[in-house]
Amino acid sequence: MGEPLTVGVDFGTLSGRAVVVRVADGAELGSGVFEYPHGVLDETLPATGRALPPEWALQVPADYVGVLRNAVPAALRDAGVDAADVVGIATDFTACTMVPTTADGTPLCELPEFEGNPHAYVKLWKHHAAQPQAVRINELARTRGEKWLPRYGGLISSEWEFAKALEVFEEAPDVYAAMRHWVEAADWIVWQLTGSYVRNACTAGYKGILQDGQYPSRDFLRELAPGFESFVADKLEHPLGQLGSRAGSLTAEAAAWTGLPEGIAVAVGNVDAHVTAPAAQAVEPGQMVAIMGTSTCHVMNGAELREVPGMCGVVEGGIVPGLWGYEAGQSGVGDIFGWFVEHFAGAGHEELTRLAAQQEIGEHGLVALDWHSGNRSVLVDHELSGVIVGQTLATRAEDVYRALLEATAFGTRKIIETFDAAGVGVTELIIAGGLVKNALLMQIYADVTNLPLSVIGSAQGPALGSAIHAAVAAGAYPDVRAAAAAMGSVERAVYRPVPAHVVAYDELYAEYTQLHDYFGRGGNDVMHRLAARKRAVAKGQS
Amino acid sequence: MGEPLTVGVDFGTLSGRAVVVRVADGAELGSGVFEYPHGVLDETLPATGRALPPEWALQVPADYVGVLRNAVPAALRDAGVDAADVVGIATDFTACTMVPTTADGTPLCELPEFEGNPHAYVKLWKHHAAQPQAVRINELARTRGEKWLPRYGGLISSEWEFAKALEVFEEAPDVYAAMRHWVEAADWIVWQLTGSYVRNACTAGYKGILQDGQYPSRDFLRELAPGFESFVADKLEHPLGQLGSRAGSLTAEAAAWTGLPEGIAVAVGNVDAHVTAPAAQAVEPGQMVAIMGTSTCHVMNGAELREVPGMCGVVEGGIVPGLWGYEAGQSGVGDIFGWFVEHFAGAGHEELTRLAAQQEIGEHGLVALDWHSGNRSVLVDHELSGVIVGQTLATRAEDVYRALLEATAFGTRKIIETFDAAGVGVTELIIAGGLVKNALLMQIYADVTNLPLSVIGSAQGPALGSAIHAAVAAGAYPDVRAAAAAMGSVERAVYRPVPAHVVAYDELYAEYTQLHDYFGRGGNDVMHRLAARKRAVAKGQS
Repeated sequence: MGEPLTVGVDFGTLSGRAVVVRVADGAELGSGVFEYPHGVLDETLPATGRALPPEWALQVPADYVGVLRNAVPAALRDAGVDAADVVGIATDFTACTMVPTTADGTPLCELPEFEGNPHAYVKLWKHHAAQPQAVRINELARTRGEKWLPRYGGLISSEWEFAKALEVFEEAPDVYAAMRHWVEAADWIVWQLTGSYVRNACTAGYKGILQDGQYPSRDFLRELAPGFESFVADKLEHPLGQLGSRAGSLTAEAAAWTGLPEGIAVAVGNVDAHVTAPAAQAVEPGQMVAIMGTSTCHVMNGAELREVPGMCGVVEGGIVPGLWGYEAGQSGVGDIFGWFVEHFAGAGHEELTRLAAQQEIGEHGLVALDWHSGNRSVLVDHELSGVIVGQTLATRAEDVYRALLEATAFGTRKIIETFDAAGVGVTELIIAGGLVKNALLMQIYADVTNLPLSVIGSAQGPALGSAIHAAVAAGAYPDVRAAAAAMGSVERAVYRPVPAHVVAYDELYAEYTQLHDYFGRGGNDVMHRLAARKRAVAKGQS
Repeated sequence: MGEPLTVGVDFGTLSGRAVVVRVADGAELGSGVFEYPHGVLDETLPATGRALPPEWALQVPADYVGVLRNAVPAALRDAGVDAADVVGIATDFTACTMVPTTADGTPLCELPEFEGNPHAYVKLWKHHAAQPQAVRINELARTRGEKWLPRYGGLISSEWEFAKALEVFEEAPDVYAAMRHWVEAADWIVWQLTGSYVRNACTAGYKGILQDGQYPSRDFLRELAPGFESFVADKLEHPLGQLGSRAGSLTAEAAAWTGLPEGIAVAVGNVDAHVTAPAAQAVEPGQMVAIMGTSTCHVMNGAELREVPGMCGVVEGGIVPGLWGYEAGQSGVGDIFGWFVEHFAGAGHEELTRLAAQQEIGEHGLVALDWHSGNRSVLVDHELSGVIVGQTLATRAEDVYRALLEATAFGTRKIIETFDAAGVGVTELIIAGGLVKNALLMQIYADVTNLPLSVIGSAQGPALGSAIHAAVAAGAYPDVRAAAAAMGSVERAVYRPVPAHVVAYDELYAEYTQLHDYFGRGGNDVMHRLAARKRAVAKGQS
């Protein structure tokens, strides 16, 4: 036998990545990637070609199994290790990404009678069509003074379990009736590995409105929509598993898929962002991890419970046991840059970054709002949209590009300031995710936030984080903190704020804030009206 | 001898165009174009390569003579006529475009000692660097209650004679001292044709603040800037010529340049927009002509004097004798579309128009402000800039393109409504200029303004308008109205508003108005601050 190993598998928006990790020190020995064959369904259903309305985003669950069957064996081959040395596997997933299933976990979209019904598919985190349901949930919760509401910054997102479920209940009653479980994809994939369903405490808290052991009440749900009152009991409630604990053992079938030994430990499901914190050794209060990719998720531990306006949520033990796990997010970051490059710039990221890096702060004369995918924190409003102010005939693509980079940095500062103001102090910003590669972007974030930027040591933070949880689930470490200390890695203060830049950005941030509040806090609801009109036109045409 | 002919020459922003026209019926027999070799100088000076600051826009006067030497002979050749049949020539020009000259009309930039001084060059209409001077002129005029101020909508533009002159006075005292005449290019070109300087009543009124026979007083100018009090007497004041009257006779030198007979009538100088009104037979009150090109100029006659907030000006006989000539403008229109296509769209105008035309109103979910070149009417603020609200990751180039088309239509509606509210009713909109070719744009303008759109018959409206004035100057018609009736042409109500579109655009126009007032009327001065910061950065670097 060689040294003990674990496998971490990170399920992203477009692909899944497996990494083989040495338990002793977290060394990443090999990796494999599998792109989802169906990607994100946002235009048509694969089976029938049926068109999807705007703001829909679905996935095909078989694609996830494809990751187990392809990326894990590829990672083992890449590592050149003996699979027999693997003692555990753990997974992390996008969230809130929901799978409607039968009692045995079969996704409803795999039943012939539902292959043409979009509600039977996986509703990906960025499916935003349940916004009307979210609005009603929030209005009713405010009216009734529901105690769980402040735990979510005062607003439940249309991305989460209840809004998406209510959308199924109201728009596809047949799918709703056939659905036995409304399952986080994070748990569905563990179900495929172990053969049994364990609901992870992280998503149950952050996305499932489970607080102090309670879900929203039957009374609340009945008032929300008659007939929906039994949703929790009938479809949602299920025994929980804590992060880092063992959900079960790898089945023979899953062992055959993956090439891993049957019976090894499978950890409780987890979320890509949250699992990254231990990978970056960011397990103490004040250490905010920003996982920057297509979107950004911010996770941080706090010693005490505080209610931060507009945060995504606070969950006891939501990141590591014994601390309050805080989450916030920006719904569009890298995808805004990518969208601009793809559709509006005659140059690529590298060239635009090179040109933008030559500019002084404010030279482009622009300020933008980074709401092209809505605003997750601190406004929690997916109907908001992007703004750019200050364009002249001298404005060039690199100017807009830089303004968009800066806008996302301002969005991060807005979140940090809101945490600080609520008594959850942020002392360090640790960056993970694909965007760490852009040095200009990193320096902008340091200058805008006036915080030293640390950078995660691993390029595959979530997968490493999962491997850490696998090690804990396999009993190699007593807890996640101990495993993180041994297996995680971070480089401290790689980017430091430049004082003159900080001063300059303070001024531009003041502009951002004024526009942020005007467009986002009721000064001018033009974005909602434009979105409503766009929806009305789309309905009239379909 | 054949039928009597005239030549009209239109001096635009990038080129000059000559047209040979039959006096009897306005038939355009031939034309010629000459592109200015130096185009617009907005980056460096040709002689020295000296860099120009932002917002500068200069030209080289020799380029204008090139039009006389090249475009006029080309037009004669194209027409295949005998030059001996030409009885008169007239010119129209961009305005306010200013040439600093010696006593004999030599442009100061042609003197070796000044070839490296940007203030010695022609300051093109869109030179916007005199904004600080314009601000001071307006503040002082308001404080002193100057009676001429309301004749210009309450604001004097940085584009006009006084702001640009004050900029020379303060920033280049040597140029100012050497300057004997501060000449409209419209008059400078007539000076080249006749050998003598006549100041046209149109630009003297609209751009030179000549009202009721008076320029701003010495007191006013002294208070504005000590030493500047003699500006009018020393540099500006000069005998006036009325529109359509004869400025003089073609010199032997100019006859040699153009191939025209020496001694024929040369009309008083005129402005491209104003001269277009008779070409479109729009010489009655309520007929607003919009000359739509890189920018749009609106000219209309009114029976009475009214003070319209934010109009460019009202001048007695400013368009045709006997009526009050009103002028308004949008500083960016076609150049905004061109800028977007050149720098931000992967497709051309035709393809974007084709895609945009397939959309329902509001389908793109966007609303834009068309201030990429500032706002001429009704805000008269060149430091304003473009805004786009509502972008999402689904936004494509054709969406933004359509939103920009619409924004300019909203800008036109804002002007029309302001005129209506001031008691200068607009009953018909007549479109001239290059943008009439875009049928989608025309229909959007009809739908947004809820007015029938007439279209000028000539594709070369200004040049035809000049030819009409040449005919009057030559004595072929008693006045401009009579000549317009015989030589002008218009097609009535080519585009009619679609009632359902009118309703839909009323809603989007309300959004435009709200953003217009927020960003343009003090709700949020972010654009001024961004422009100031951009200027400061540019200064710090130079």
